[in-house]
Amino acid sequence: MRGQSLPTLPSFTGGLVTALGVIGGKWKPVILAELHRRPLRFGELRRAVLGVSEKVLSQQLREMELDGVVHRDECSRTLPRAVQYSLTELGLALHESLLPLAAWGEEHESRAPRARD
Amino acid sequence: MRGQSLPTLPSFTGGLVTALGVIGGKWKPVILAELHRRPLRFGELRRAVLGVSEKVLSQQLREMELDGVVHRDECSRTLPRAVQYSLTELGLALHESLLPLAAWGEEHESRAPRARD
Repeated sequence: MRGQSLPTLPSFTGGLVTALGVIGGKWKPVILAELHRRPLRFGELRRAVLGVSEKVLSQQLREMELDGVVHRDECSRTLPRAVQYSLTELGLALHESLLPLAAWGEEHESRAPRARD
Repeated sequence: MRGQSLPTLPSFTGGLVTALGVIGGKWKPVILAELHRRPLRFGELRRAVLGVSEKVLSQQLREMELDGVVHRDECSRTLPRAVQYSLTELGLALHESLLPLAAWGEEHESRAPRARD
């Protein structure tokens, strides 16, 4: 899709596909919102993200870390080791860039001709 | 996820999940970008959206129509009937709300620690 020409806005599709790859899925929007409120330990995050399994949450966090939006801070001086997750600058910018879309979605919920799952 | 409390920004997650449901997937960002450039007939759109099958494009358009972002305009006075697709006001607003996210994605492509598919 990247090779396609979109003269009026060449980067729209490519950038959007990249961004949706980073934030897409069932859990990542919630993880992003929670970590935007405050840094959290794994257990705290798991309690905040209702319904997520430990395994899936780990996977999601690992992907978000590899995508550069989540920072994993490990304090090795404590036992057991305290690991805390927070948003990176890139993650904070992602959250900011999602605000208009979230507002659109909220507006859409009240105007949509049908509810989609 | 809707029932979850997010005191600082209560609507962020719900709105975002809704919006991602409308724009998510492989083809919809491209369809949105193409129809933002100009209204298109089905065949024109299919040529513009490289690699999409007729069946899948039909499904995507139908979903976008049901979500209120695409308008299907059928002119019954011509034979064969001319069907043209365009963005609704809601679709135009969706495109607008995606611009910061697309810009973030474009920036991210140049900074990401890894390329994700």
